[in-house]
Amino acid sequence: MSSVIEALVKELGDQVRVGADIPLRNHADASGLAPTPPQVLILPRSTSDVATALRLCHEHRQPVVIQGGLTGLAGGAHPQAGEIALSLERMSGVEEIDPASATLTALAGTPLAVVQQAADEAGFLCGIDLGARGTCTIGGNIATNAGGNQVLRYGMARRNTLGLEVVLADGTIVRSLNKMLKNNAGYDWTQIFIGSEGTLGVVTRVVVGLHPKPQGQQTALCAVSSFEDATAVLRRFQQAHPGRLLVFEAMWREFMTVATQICGLSPAFSDEYDLTLLIEADMGEDPEGTETFSAVLGDFYEQGLIKDAVVAQSQADRNRFWTYRETPYEYGRFLPEEIRFDVSVPLDHMTEAVEHLRQEMPKQYPDAIWVVFGHVADSNIHINVAVKDMDDGIKKGIQGLVYDLVARLGGSISAEHGIGRIKRPYLPLSRTEPELVLMTTLKRTLDPAGILNPGRVL
Amino acid sequence: MSSVIEALVKELGDQVRVGADIPLRNHADASGLAPTPPQVLILPRSTSDVATALRLCHEHRQPVVIQGGLTGLAGGAHPQAGEIALSLERMSGVEEIDPASATLTALAGTPLAVVQQAADEAGFLCGIDLGARGTCTIGGNIATNAGGNQVLRYGMARRNTLGLEVVLADGTIVRSLNKMLKNNAGYDWTQIFIGSEGTLGVVTRVVVGLHPKPQGQQTALCAVSSFEDATAVLRRFQQAHPGRLLVFEAMWREFMTVATQICGLSPAFSDEYDLTLLIEADMGEDPEGTETFSAVLGDFYEQGLIKDAVVAQSQADRNRFWTYRETPYEYGRFLPEEIRFDVSVPLDHMTEAVEHLRQEMPKQYPDAIWVVFGHVADSNIHINVAVKDMDDGIKKGIQGLVYDLVARLGGSISAEHGIGRIKRPYLPLSRTEPELVLMTTLKRTLDPAGILNPGRVL
Repeated sequence: MSSVIEALVKELGDQVRVGADIPLRNHADASGLAPTPPQVLILPRSTSDVATALRLCHEHRQPVVIQGGLTGLAGGAHPQAGEIALSLERMSGVEEIDPASATLTALAGTPLAVVQQAADEAGFLCGIDLGARGTCTIGGNIATNAGGNQVLRYGMARRNTLGLEVVLADGTIVRSLNKMLKNNAGYDWTQIFIGSEGTLGVVTRVVVGLHPKPQGQQTALCAVSSFEDATAVLRRFQQAHPGRLLVFEAMWREFMTVATQICGLSPAFSDEYDLTLLIEADMGEDPEGTETFSAVLGDFYEQGLIKDAVVAQSQADRNRFWTYRETPYEYGRFLPEEIRFDVSVPLDHMTEAVEHLRQEMPKQYPDAIWVVFGHVADSNIHINVAVKDMDDGIKKGIQGLVYDLVARLGGSISAEHGIGRIKRPYLPLSRTEPELVLMTTLKRTLDPAGILNPGRVL
Repeated sequence: MSSVIEALVKELGDQVRVGADIPLRNHADASGLAPTPPQVLILPRSTSDVATALRLCHEHRQPVVIQGGLTGLAGGAHPQAGEIALSLERMSGVEEIDPASATLTALAGTPLAVVQQAADEAGFLCGIDLGARGTCTIGGNIATNAGGNQVLRYGMARRNTLGLEVVLADGTIVRSLNKMLKNNAGYDWTQIFIGSEGTLGVVTRVVVGLHPKPQGQQTALCAVSSFEDATAVLRRFQQAHPGRLLVFEAMWREFMTVATQICGLSPAFSDEYDLTLLIEADMGEDPEGTETFSAVLGDFYEQGLIKDAVVAQSQADRNRFWTYRETPYEYGRFLPEEIRFDVSVPLDHMTEAVEHLRQEMPKQYPDAIWVVFGHVADSNIHINVAVKDMDDGIKKGIQGLVYDLVARLGGSISAEHGIGRIKRPYLPLSRTEPELVLMTTLKRTLDPAGILNPGRVL
């Protein structure tokens, strides 16, 4: 046994697992990289256990991979050979809900769904939500600045985070369990750790701000003929009903074609349109919420902005509308192997981006089945490309096509999934040299031995 | 002439002013500290001029004070003997409004009112707003993470900032003029500079996110008998009409007594109540907005939460309601010398805080005239204390009373005004030793020669 493992076992006892005692789940995250057993798995029960573990790893210059719910798609939590895994799964639980401040305090390893449930039972809504809610952890959400479907209304994880407890690389515990919306007492150091993907410190405890529960939620599918019309609908809706839009998802023509012709869903409209929008709004306690919502869409129809629309009259309708948006989860059953992209494109270049793909994709990859969809109000689109007999050459080619396009249009190669290991080679496409130098300076300052999630982000 | 001044004059020519050529306005900020002429005033015309100035000062280890609109209350921009002042006043102008992305790009020295006006003319609202809007600059707002009356709805300056251009202490220019709501491509390094009060870098250009313009703004004054009832009104209003509250200001009994008995305003209600709330909501394009707004308040009245209320029927009414909230600007005409506090208190301790002041203030300072008011939805209260024959001993005593109380209740000694020079001695009351060490580490890393706003914050 190496000296660092001996030291860990001595101080942390049965919180340290080796060899066959390490569950398979800790060998991989959701990135699709080949499973790799970590050298050791540490399962701390408390912040001070995390501090002990990091202090020893720091002293021994032992690389550590930080694990939460292991749902990340960029390889951030995926072990590399020789790394020790530190999993926060035992540090789970909501510690406090403060209704006066509308805040919730939880241990970092608490699953997001547990946080959401606790907020709901206390009469509030947790503004962080994403598909992996049952498995992902609130600490992981904050460490990766998670996005999701409701960013338009509640912001990314950053905006929902009021306080943090973090263990630094050398084992120092830094804590600001702030519950106040306004606190300008010195630097807000917590911002550095949000979205740093575990490379600058380990989030162990969080304070999230809660929101009023939506009432009278309304859902519609709308057909529009151009992205420009889609953004006009977005801005005019926000103008007419400020603060009410919850969801504004766009699915381009190719996406709906795959949904209906390959995944077997019935067409949403009798004609085909360039974009289908999935719109949700919280109309509050207004008893005429459905009528008001329908009336706004009716106005847009009369103005020619919307070509067709259908408003959900029941939860069953609502579920049916969401089925379109969720077809990508089913692509594995219907399509050949895919590459999935999570990128941002400035809204004034979105049409150009999609048109470029429409021109280049059939030319370069005639057999490719590809779709564009996403949270367009946030500039965030997902691009999925499925190709028969996918190989590394094709992958690299498609990645080049998409990332070069995004870089040329001033977009971001990662909207919400982070950089991790997988997107690291492409980071210079979205960041200038002085930015990369500044990031590296921060990394060296906060983790001088380079033990935290090495090879991720930078 | 010292060698650094010679070098500055050589490279920047007439952008460098000395002696009597330095206007008096650059001798002081709004903190009330004794005016002090800077050694030199630099008036750069461009980011590269700022970079040149900082590079030379860094090489010569020459301390620099950064100046924007000079409206800060904490002494951050107030020159200290021997410092060179770098004022961004010539770097003014809105460079772009992008309606698709709903963003505005401006030079840091642009007055906030100019930014607001440009946003308004383009059909949007700038979410940053505060009393000093005519003079303060957008760069200063972001460098200090400014708050204001509408933080409840639009957040602090941080939430409104999408991109920044910053010049580091050594003259390096770092730029991320991001317009996208979602961008997780590496660390969001801009967060470090927001609220750092010019001690880590100089903000030279900003991208702010814009909001839909409020429509159908409604205003009311409401009387409530306890802070608990006030928070119940806040939460229930948010629940019934999500996203509509713009302003939720509280004025405690003592405040209204000063407003009516000393400043000469007519009483708002026929009885006296423990708290008066100033509430504004954006009811959107709803033609029945006024009725809906009044009906909600009517419900609260019937539930006993609100004891009395008056809804503005005209802009004149609205202005009259705001007159109460703005009486503190007039205190100089009516009251002896004051100390003003800007603190945060967690909402579940707010009543305890006010009751403690009600008990201790008359005991320790029988002649004091003191008031509590503020943006309570954000946990932020202002406490003004006027005492005849104020001296340093009394000041220190009152500061001790207020800051010890705030520290004991887990509050913040600076809600929105920052730390600057004036609150620096009290920072350890709101921050632990590991937090201060971490802040100092960041400062040393980003400004190793310690030239940027030395003695501010840390």
